[in-house]
Amino acid sequence: MKIISLMGATGSIGTQTLDVIREHPTEFKLAAISVGKNIDMARKIIGEFQPELISVQDYHDCNTLKAEFPHIKFTYGNEGLIEIAVYEKADILVNAVLGSVGLHPTLQAIECGKTIAIANKETLVTAGHLVMDAAKRNNVSLLPVDSEHSAIFQALQGEKEKNIERLILTASGGSFRDRSRKEIENVTVQEALNHPNWSMGAKITIDSATMMNKGLEVIEAHWLFQIPYEKIDVLLHKESIIHSMVEFHDSSIIAQLGTPDMRVPIQYALTYPDRLPRLSANRLDLAQIGKLHFQEMDIERFRCLHFAYIAGNEGGTLPTVLNAANEAAVAAFLEGKIRFLQIEDLIEKALSNHQTIAHPSLAVIQEVDKETRKFVHSLL
Amino acid sequence: MKIISLMGATGSIGTQTLDVIREHPTEFKLAAISVGKNIDMARKIIGEFQPELISVQDYHDCNTLKAEFPHIKFTYGNEGLIEIAVYEKADILVNAVLGSVGLHPTLQAIECGKTIAIANKETLVTAGHLVMDAAKRNNVSLLPVDSEHSAIFQALQGEKEKNIERLILTASGGSFRDRSRKEIENVTVQEALNHPNWSMGAKITIDSATMMNKGLEVIEAHWLFQIPYEKIDVLLHKESIIHSMVEFHDSSIIAQLGTPDMRVPIQYALTYPDRLPRLSANRLDLAQIGKLHFQEMDIERFRCLHFAYIAGNEGGTLPTVLNAANEAAVAAFLEGKIRFLQIEDLIEKALSNHQTIAHPSLAVIQEVDKETRKFVHSLL
Repeated sequence: MKIISLMGATGSIGTQTLDVIREHPTEFKLAAISVGKNIDMARKIIGEFQPELISVQDYHDCNTLKAEFPHIKFTYGNEGLIEIAVYEKADILVNAVLGSVGLHPTLQAIECGKTIAIANKETLVTAGHLVMDAAKRNNVSLLPVDSEHSAIFQALQGEKEKNIERLILTASGGSFRDRSRKEIENVTVQEALNHPNWSMGAKITIDSATMMNKGLEVIEAHWLFQIPYEKIDVLLHKESIIHSMVEFHDSSIIAQLGTPDMRVPIQYALTYPDRLPRLSANRLDLAQIGKLHFQEMDIERFRCLHFAYIAGNEGGTLPTVLNAANEAAVAAFLEGKIRFLQIEDLIEKALSNHQTIAHPSLAVIQEVDKETRKFVHSLL
Repeated sequence: MKIISLMGATGSIGTQTLDVIREHPTEFKLAAISVGKNIDMARKIIGEFQPELISVQDYHDCNTLKAEFPHIKFTYGNEGLIEIAVYEKADILVNAVLGSVGLHPTLQAIECGKTIAIANKETLVTAGHLVMDAAKRNNVSLLPVDSEHSAIFQALQGEKEKNIERLILTASGGSFRDRSRKEIENVTVQEALNHPNWSMGAKITIDSATMMNKGLEVIEAHWLFQIPYEKIDVLLHKESIIHSMVEFHDSSIIAQLGTPDMRVPIQYALTYPDRLPRLSANRLDLAQIGKLHFQEMDIERFRCLHFAYIAGNEGGTLPTVLNAANEAAVAAFLEGKIRFLQIEDLIEKALSNHQTIAHPSLAVIQEVDKETRKFVHSLL
């Protein structure tokens, strides 16, 4: 039985991780969770899964829950998040929190030798060099949860790194894939949140529409699989059936396919290197789907992807700027403060405004993250 | 360096095997070959690759070549084929002969501990139980060369057999995929030989048009991967880009893709478990292809596939009857003696006429093979 710590239990990946644990009660035990401010959902999770340790965002919520569940241990805040990450009894940490808050706890968990199932993009995007270095030092496995990286990870099983010709990340194209730049100038938040294939959180759905999501995934893939950027391609594939591919130097391509269901890659990370049945799975029927479409990625149309390649190639603190500027800009868009295409403009300005620092420490990354957000806010 | 014996050097798979060897002169050495009656091509192969042992079909050709190349060893006939198969210096035998003549030499090579790269379908179709049993006893690897089985074999790397939900063999649909049964009643040999995707030998091209090729592949897959027939599906995929797939019980599907080029699976069998670059490869560009199509297989339309499932499920000598009747019927069609759809009729009659013998020995298989051909000829 695998003992699981889950950071971000009430989010989209978090709740689907709970689905997987629920389906395999003899294989998995949920030992520790972190939640944000969704205390109602926390109560339900506690009732169903009986975790031993719960961290919440606020001190006040922590005290409320303590009074309700006197036999369970509660903690809170950033320190609480770290307690969840390094929880002694856990074999594996699922990092499903949103944003750069996931970075520090992940590094701590790696130092404690935990296997990491990583759904938090920002951890690798902003500190890939630190995370991969720590993972190597501690002989820790980083298991991808993102459908694209899981697809590549699955395609690489039994294969040698030296034989990789390129990684091909597929992209659905997001909410506005069939619209020109002109046609997305005045889109509403509601339109942007309407993803054609995947049901995900708000921030990642906007990131899909701007293609920043794919940009962050390119940087993540660079670190996870230790592949140079010129060997990472993005291909438009609107059905999101082929989740990603690896081309080998003999020209053979291995792909992973399935219906769009995040529980498949989540479960793979939890069962790796084995697989377990998914009885409730909606199985892929290619004959019923009939056609799969593929299209060149238009880097002029999706400027955020272009920014991501620039930031990734430059390295150092520039990916942190990319990520922080994007988080701040997307938040501003969701709050109705800016228009959709201004997300790109703000990111571009933040990138130009920054002097890259090579090989940044965690403290420098956090400082640059804060400064970038401040800079973006100053432009609103 | 791997030392290679090649049975069937002048055929379609044989010449493409030579292409692979030519491209990697420091990795592979061709030590022994068998050829049929194409003595001109044999001369060219001898000139280029300098094999040490050559077997030809006829005694007369053997003597002719001996006189021309006095420093090389020649042999002939069925005994010669076995000498090639068990050639002492060879690490790996590529079995690329056509028809059931490949069976006995393959069994001999397995007993000598040779790794087998198997392109000869009939070996597994007629004697899968003997071949797999001998391979297990001698701890010998059977490496598939067919693009479909190679795809499945590649998809299974790093995976566990117990996790397989089903194998999905893709089928291009052959020369007449877009025609109804009515429309193929009177097709000519020339039309039948015009395969849309693959350039192959005449017999296998006809087998593609009747879908018997896929039927034989289903039986081959059953033996190679030790999977029951109800877990082997066939999917129409007219572009032949996804070469085949494996669905695991977690609903994840791993597929192997590429341009239709037999040199990729041939090379994979020769380099397995590693890969080598294919510099001359025509790389897959999915954006340029644009669309991949999938369609349910129509078992009424393609009766030979139905026959194959029946013969495979019944087992014993029935697959031998299926294969022998098909070889005889296809030969009759290529000679203009019967019409296209009569191929199916002859196979159906041969299957109904046979009383299955369970667990047949090699002698019984050879006898049933001969009897079946005689029976089909009696109907012409």
